[in-house]
Amino acid sequence: MNMGENTYYVSYFIDELFQNGLENVVISPGSRSTPLAMTFSEHPSIKEWIHFDERSAAFFALGMAKRTGKPVALVCTSGTAAANYYPAIIEAYYSRVPLLILTADRPHELRDNGAPQAIDQIKMFGDYVKYFHEMALPENAPSMTRYSRRQASRAYAIANHQNKGPVQLNFPFRDPLVPDLSLPNLWGERSSTYVNHITGCEQVNLQQAEEIFDMVKGYNRGLIVCGELQSHEERDLVLKLAEKWDIPVLADVLSNLRKTIHSNQYIISTYDAILKQQGIRDSLDVDFVIRLGSMPVSKPYMQWITAKQPMHIVVDENQGYREPTSIESTMVYSQPGVLIKQLLECKSMPNLSRDWVDFWLTNDQVAQELLKHHEEKLTEGTAVLTLSEEIKQEQVVFVGNSMPIRDMDTFFLTSNQEVDVMANRGVNGIDGVISSAIGVAATGTPVTLVIGDVSFLHDYTGLFIARQYDLPIRVIVLNNNGGGIFSFLPQYQEKKHFETLFGTPFNPPIKALVDSLDFEYNQPQTLSELRELLRGDFNKPEVIEVVTNRDENLQWHRSKWQQVYESLNREGLS
Amino acid sequence: MNMGENTYYVSYFIDELFQNGLENVVISPGSRSTPLAMTFSEHPSIKEWIHFDERSAAFFALGMAKRTGKPVALVCTSGTAAANYYPAIIEAYYSRVPLLILTADRPHELRDNGAPQAIDQIKMFGDYVKYFHEMALPENAPSMTRYSRRQASRAYAIANHQNKGPVQLNFPFRDPLVPDLSLPNLWGERSSTYVNHITGCEQVNLQQAEEIFDMVKGYNRGLIVCGELQSHEERDLVLKLAEKWDIPVLADVLSNLRKTIHSNQYIISTYDAILKQQGIRDSLDVDFVIRLGSMPVSKPYMQWITAKQPMHIVVDENQGYREPTSIESTMVYSQPGVLIKQLLECKSMPNLSRDWVDFWLTNDQVAQELLKHHEEKLTEGTAVLTLSEEIKQEQVVFVGNSMPIRDMDTFFLTSNQEVDVMANRGVNGIDGVISSAIGVAATGTPVTLVIGDVSFLHDYTGLFIARQYDLPIRVIVLNNNGGGIFSFLPQYQEKKHFETLFGTPFNPPIKALVDSLDFEYNQPQTLSELRELLRGDFNKPEVIEVVTNRDENLQWHRSKWQQVYESLNREGLS
Repeated sequence: MNMGENTYYVSYFIDELFQNGLENVVISPGSRSTPLAMTFSEHPSIKEWIHFDERSAAFFALGMAKRTGKPVALVCTSGTAAANYYPAIIEAYYSRVPLLILTADRPHELRDNGAPQAIDQIKMFGDYVKYFHEMALPENAPSMTRYSRRQASRAYAIANHQNKGPVQLNFPFRDPLVPDLSLPNLWGERSSTYVNHITGCEQVNLQQAEEIFDMVKGYNRGLIVCGELQSHEERDLVLKLAEKWDIPVLADVLSNLRKTIHSNQYIISTYDAILKQQGIRDSLDVDFVIRLGSMPVSKPYMQWITAKQPMHIVVDENQGYREPTSIESTMVYSQPGVLIKQLLECKSMPNLSRDWVDFWLTNDQVAQELLKHHEEKLTEGTAVLTLSEEIKQEQVVFVGNSMPIRDMDTFFLTSNQEVDVMANRGVNGIDGVISSAIGVAATGTPVTLVIGDVSFLHDYTGLFIARQYDLPIRVIVLNNNGGGIFSFLPQYQEKKHFETLFGTPFNPPIKALVDSLDFEYNQPQTLSELRELLRGDFNKPEVIEVVTNRDENLQWHRSKWQQVYESLNREGLS
Repeated sequence: MNMGENTYYVSYFIDELFQNGLENVVISPGSRSTPLAMTFSEHPSIKEWIHFDERSAAFFALGMAKRTGKPVALVCTSGTAAANYYPAIIEAYYSRVPLLILTADRPHELRDNGAPQAIDQIKMFGDYVKYFHEMALPENAPSMTRYSRRQASRAYAIANHQNKGPVQLNFPFRDPLVPDLSLPNLWGERSSTYVNHITGCEQVNLQQAEEIFDMVKGYNRGLIVCGELQSHEERDLVLKLAEKWDIPVLADVLSNLRKTIHSNQYIISTYDAILKQQGIRDSLDVDFVIRLGSMPVSKPYMQWITAKQPMHIVVDENQGYREPTSIESTMVYSQPGVLIKQLLECKSMPNLSRDWVDFWLTNDQVAQELLKHHEEKLTEGTAVLTLSEEIKQEQVVFVGNSMPIRDMDTFFLTSNQEVDVMANRGVNGIDGVISSAIGVAATGTPVTLVIGDVSFLHDYTGLFIARQYDLPIRVIVLNNNGGGIFSFLPQYQEKKHFETLFGTPFNPPIKALVDSLDFEYNQPQTLSELRELLRGDFNKPEVIEVVTNRDENLQWHRSKWQQVYESLNREGLS
């Protein structure tokens, strides 16, 4: 009872993924997927991770792939299993994370005819995968094992090519499903890829780069603005360009320009706080903006440039259209690192006004000092400020959406430590956040996750992965018992349905849930208790619950922004 | 700061759903969905349910809609929120459950351009919705409120028309999002639908019905086979036809023919056990099968008819192709109730052999007696047998997929109590089972859920709905620490990767998870303790954990099947 005669079709497929560089596969239990699951497990070098919930399995894979910049494979059985991948696939598509979705399926004769656990899996993720292919039924004929190698290589290359993203291969399998793993030369004894992909990247020529330079060189109030970048190399090039051009860089928390051992004197980490009040936005003119990476989190920034309409140059890798303001813009399609190198080669440089540069550098200092000298009260904001102070070299902070990412963007300040901040900002879901952070931890880096209580509950099953593999994840749950962000929105004025629909106090039993997994749990009562906890090392899962109050939180934020507003040095305003 | 001028567009839409019969809406928190969420909450007669996890929210809605046979509305915000609905939508599509998916979206100018929490929601569920419509931006012009009423009525009618299923309307909303609920005549003062749908049903004419009858009347070894039926009316007609024709009815546990106050002497509930051994299947010939409802759960039945190839008549409502064996078949498209009435009107009746009828009726008694006189040891099988004995009139048993549905099909025997059994057998996922069962409980019926431990963990967040609304759900978790069903499959022979990939012992902390929600929890150690618990009433959430052992379970099942095999009366075998 084995599928011996078809074993090589799958084992060569998997070997080819390995030859391309695949290191991790995340498998959810099932029967139809047996050929893939067992053969992956047999592979001596690919690490398999098992998780029962396909939704969090996919976000876990996404976290790993996002951190390593390399495809991670996902394997699930037929039926709704694959549909649970959908949220993570959409996030991966928009945040450009490479995933290899390998879905097992019933063979054609058992589809759409009442056979159990069979759905139509053909193109079931629509346009959210870069490539879909329905695989042939397994056959060991040389022509077919060549085909399975080619498809492995091709799928890997497409996922990993600019813009990176998810691809799906759908595998029909007939009974019997168990492969014969005792066959000789299971992996084909290759030491390189069967199909090798040498891929270029989109770039403008030098003349086009000079034209971009010529557009901005006559102006003296310019900015570089960085959202999430794709690599440290891009980040380092931005730092070089800032030094050479003497130009402020508004650095979103996800740009990872804020905390780095490199010189970061031009990095403005507090621009969200600086631009928060309309009075500043109205009186601060700006001539040009060069944006790299994704749209920044900051809403005040977006409101400001929408109102001021500076010359707007948006650089993107090879496609995509991350420009929601609809102001007059130049879209530059080029690998950003290549473009910055070209700009660095231009002999002359822009000549920004001293007032302008000083406005940003001075006020960033002003705002940072003000924020650093915060009170000792434990609030969501001071929790993030304390994390900014205490986070250790080479660690990663993963940030939940809704309030945590906004607090991190406002209060996670510059320093000379190498700390990366990550988040699921493709489409900003509150789903799958725990699993994604644990995926980063699975690459060997200790991860501190900052997350709200609703998002925590939403992805609770993800914590089982951390338990299963004892991964270094420290979860800070900012528990304000509900949807804290809505207090900042106009819905808050409508008291009638507010608590039911937006406040949504679900009374999350955080401690009990954490205890059920035997993780270390702490609930600091004061900021100094939190600081002590953050100073500790961790190499396994632990949870810190910070209980806050939504109304107090709203007041605290408003008063901070007011303080920043009042302290700003207004020289340099237009 | 309100959208007063667009309020009626949404409020009339919701009123029209109400006029069509909508009673329930399940809302997940979000900002973009504010116009729908607040207006639904304001409606005096539609009940709103709030749940933070869209995946379980959708399965919860599915449970309600499946039980009531009427559409339930779902509301979520933009982004991956809607993608979390996908598993439940696919289940609803295949199990023909009407759902109204109302997804809020960014307006067109903020789509696919880097604006936060915006994905391409157009046709994002592919062919899994019966109808998709992108709504116009809200406007209060009479032509547009007429349009919004029409779309409400139309979507409701399509979801509710044969075959029932999910539909999606996608709503672009611009800021400001808060409606003005103080406006006069918010619901338009109608007392009936604006667009009324009078829908027929597919049916064959009398002559065609007689032709069907003529096909079978010359044979004396015939069966009616019933999978899941759509209504009690269909079920009662099947009982009448069985009486009139003197014909055995192989009744899947989801047919709800087993436990009914009506006479059910022809109902064979043990056919799975009877057909389990190949010896019986080989020696038992059959001339014709008329199948109503979905494919039965029983694999032995499928193997038997695939081998014997009887004349095969499959009745289905108006489309669908629930016939996976590919044996020569007649597909009859007619509303089954109408067809049975036509067959009942045919003057003559089939003349089955006494031996044949007695083989089934006698052996069903033999098998039932044998199973009823089970040992007092607590196993998965005896737990289900005891539930079969103790379940109370008018209650519902909801069954998880994988092992529980198979155990229920084998061991849930006939009796003269009115008990319905339900399951998600559209595509048999282990996902969303808790939420679906709680959805049934939300209609006012106490529900006993029988579920495995992996499926329990998968949908743990669903339990928060039961906590929030204090619903009458009793969960029996059959905890064998992993994927019990795989022990019955060929994978079990491959010890090398079995536990990692298929056994998957996740050590689920069931008690701790239940305690975290403050539900009553019991873990019976003996069968009599379980019986005592099952005899108790319940009107709020409680959990009974039955700890079993996968290997013991396998042996117990095998010995039961062997006992049944040895006890069968072989007269009537061909």
